[in-house]
Amino acid sequence: MSNDSNDALLTALRAAVGPNQVLSSGDLSAWERDWRKRWNGKALAVVRPGSTAEVAAVVKLCALHGVSIVPQGGNTGLVGGGVPDASGTQVLLSLARMNRVRQIDRTNLTMTADAGCVLQALQAAADGAELLFPLSLAAEGSCTIGGNLATNAGGTQVLRYGNARELCLGLEVVTAQGEVWDGLSGLRKDNTGYDLRDLMIGSEGTLGIITGATLKLFPRPAVNLTALATTQDLAQCVALLGLAQTRLGAGLTGFEVMNAFSLDLVKQHFPQLQQPLPAAPWTVLMECADAEGEAPARARFESLLEAALEAGLIDDAAVAESLAQSASLWQLRESIPLAQSEEGVNVKHDIALPVSAIPAFCAHTDAALQAAYPGARLVNFGHLGDGNLHYNLQCPVGEQAAQFLARHEHDINRIVFDAVQAAAGSISAEHGIGVLKREELAERKSPVALQMMRAIKQALDPQGVLNPGRVL
Amino acid sequence: MSNDSNDALLTALRAAVGPNQVLSSGDLSAWERDWRKRWNGKALAVVRPGSTAEVAAVVKLCALHGVSIVPQGGNTGLVGGGVPDASGTQVLLSLARMNRVRQIDRTNLTMTADAGCVLQALQAAADGAELLFPLSLAAEGSCTIGGNLATNAGGTQVLRYGNARELCLGLEVVTAQGEVWDGLSGLRKDNTGYDLRDLMIGSEGTLGIITGATLKLFPRPAVNLTALATTQDLAQCVALLGLAQTRLGAGLTGFEVMNAFSLDLVKQHFPQLQQPLPAAPWTVLMECADAEGEAPARARFESLLEAALEAGLIDDAAVAESLAQSASLWQLRESIPLAQSEEGVNVKHDIALPVSAIPAFCAHTDAALQAAYPGARLVNFGHLGDGNLHYNLQCPVGEQAAQFLARHEHDINRIVFDAVQAAAGSISAEHGIGVLKREELAERKSPVALQMMRAIKQALDPQGVLNPGRVL
Repeated sequence: MSNDSNDALLTALRAAVGPNQVLSSGDLSAWERDWRKRWNGKALAVVRPGSTAEVAAVVKLCALHGVSIVPQGGNTGLVGGGVPDASGTQVLLSLARMNRVRQIDRTNLTMTADAGCVLQALQAAADGAELLFPLSLAAEGSCTIGGNLATNAGGTQVLRYGNARELCLGLEVVTAQGEVWDGLSGLRKDNTGYDLRDLMIGSEGTLGIITGATLKLFPRPAVNLTALATTQDLAQCVALLGLAQTRLGAGLTGFEVMNAFSLDLVKQHFPQLQQPLPAAPWTVLMECADAEGEAPARARFESLLEAALEAGLIDDAAVAESLAQSASLWQLRESIPLAQSEEGVNVKHDIALPVSAIPAFCAHTDAALQAAYPGARLVNFGHLGDGNLHYNLQCPVGEQAAQFLARHEHDINRIVFDAVQAAAGSISAEHGIGVLKREELAERKSPVALQMMRAIKQALDPQGVLNPGRVL
Repeated sequence: MSNDSNDALLTALRAAVGPNQVLSSGDLSAWERDWRKRWNGKALAVVRPGSTAEVAAVVKLCALHGVSIVPQGGNTGLVGGGVPDASGTQVLLSLARMNRVRQIDRTNLTMTADAGCVLQALQAAADGAELLFPLSLAAEGSCTIGGNLATNAGGTQVLRYGNARELCLGLEVVTAQGEVWDGLSGLRKDNTGYDLRDLMIGSEGTLGIITGATLKLFPRPAVNLTALATTQDLAQCVALLGLAQTRLGAGLTGFEVMNAFSLDLVKQHFPQLQQPLPAAPWTVLMECADAEGEAPARARFESLLEAALEAGLIDDAAVAESLAQSASLWQLRESIPLAQSEEGVNVKHDIALPVSAIPAFCAHTDAALQAAYPGARLVNFGHLGDGNLHYNLQCPVGEQAAQFLARHEHDINRIVFDAVQAAAGSISAEHGIGVLKREELAERKSPVALQMMRAIKQALDPQGVLNPGRVL
């Protein structure tokens, strides 16, 4: 595109959203670079609309000028889906200024909010109404609900409440033509046509720009309880999960596993964090919520752990006695990625498998990786309740991490993803595709599904205005 | 199409699925007429494939010959989406022979089944594995899971377990081009591209033909308890719902309401059914499930009802003491549609509203209908927990029902649907669009949404092979 045309577009954008909300010079790295610093893009401009109507105006102008748009929320994505490419031709559209909670309906148990609301602010808004918005993940202090929905974010309470998808009843979306679809809805049931809501959720900004959402709220549980337990192997972890699901039903809200090496890394790099149980091949972090109250909930939780001990599923267990103890157990779990960073760069995977397939998958893949890279150290942890593992690999002791990765990352991915595919799993459980896994997707996804995806993209965004080169 | 071409197609279909599975003469009314006998279609042929490959072959042949296909499961739909039109040119594709449970994975809590499996058979299969498949609705003895998913069926446990959509993890679908998309998946998390599963669910056979599904299973609760309670008005029902949600959490599995006239009709036409509580403006039927056991569950349930009595939300309550008593309470609720039929033809609505909007909606709409049709009798009952009412109207006493309907049904619908739209509700909560509500949808749905729906239909089925004239 010519400079004249660029200038005309920038002038029109300034008229549409205000001159201060179109940034085309100076340091724009806060928007152009992802937070892991893996992609350094260059935007034609950063545009910050303040309303849905302004988003629609921006899309119309960009479509008119043949300029593509990269929507961005809190810029916390892990797959490069929310930063511009390096061409300097894309408009980075930041939703961050749209951060208003529009309505809380306590009786209907719903909250309607702008896409740019930070997740933690929505959790707090719900809490202020004595209700619970259960979406919870590491980036909650800066990620936005629009980004959470565009990527169908997961997190730590999916086992009970589902992914972002299951927590959304309705959307407001600006289409590739710059039209506003008002699909905000506080309805639990609505069978009037195709499910456009779920099509937009998880489409990573390639089919429409989410500008608002109506979300499900829940009564706040009377109490949350946390426990650690140790097991000898993954099969015991899976059996414990089944027992907990049977005995606690929907009261089981979290079921995380950590292998010995992942907690060992935490001990090495964060020795100040107490580890209440002796080291074991596997440690399980369980959480339950209860509507009734602390005493009966604790009795049920302890009785579950006793039954697990008697059945030989666990070797040891500890129930947190206070909120502080509970927080420190969660801190162990949440420190694993940080401890990995401290140890050095590593190969990360975000995979999902049928829960029943996990023990055999890990046995097979651990062995394959050890055979190919003797001494490789596996950091295996994640949301076993959802079949979602963060199955990561640190280089053998003594090797240079960066060199090891440069040489082997591609082949390590192949070993892991081939095994995932053989077990009917997913190569991206909760982080999405973006640019990082686009080629992997093209190679591994069913051609019939890819063909339908391409047809839908072409139907809804024939000009390729919205986030081109992501996902597909 | 010429008779020669028809003959060629029928010959090819017989070669594809076997001569006995292509019916083109004799009485085909079991497939051509819906079970309410509202639509009498005429098919070119009834084709009964026995496998996914055969379904694909049938679609390819029909596409080649320019003949459209109406997929059918148990033929229990209420909106005419599963019977052929009267032209004699459409192929009725029955999935009924595909009725195999392919796999139950007790550890992963999933079941994979053919689309033609009858819902009750799937409930029984889950029960045989000591697990629960919670989808439950009146037609469960003959409806099929493929039809349940194609229409996103609701039912009586949506409050706890969600609609058919929420109970499905993966699909196998034959596309309009006759390709097989193997999207069967036992994964709880999978963010690899657009959500084709949810696009197919609820699309009423217009975007693809569902041939198989992987479904969520749950541990069987240790106990289910049922209670009746009476209130003075809908606002009290809504307040009781909120109290029950707060105190029972996910333990609350059903919350149905019935107005006085609906139970009065049951009393008139089924006097043998015991009604344990005195008549009241509203009667609530509540159900809870509990993982722990009968005694603590009963204590929690009774304590909830005591609190509601003390708070003045209810006037009276009765908890079923046995499974037989529980069944007889549900029988009251389930006899309402039958009692309505006995009383005479009537105008039915299947609407959804934000729960918070329901008392004002009913006050307003009741009054509007009474003003327009003095003496009109409102049968108002349904799934209050999901905001879903079956808001029906019997003609005034003394009038001829059929004549009253012929004269007034259209205007009654207008009054009700205008009020639904004003309250941001849905004109079809759980029954779908089919042909019955197609024009209403075109009139009332957001034009932007309709435009996206049409673009998607055109993209996935450009030839219009799949169930044309339904939904859109």
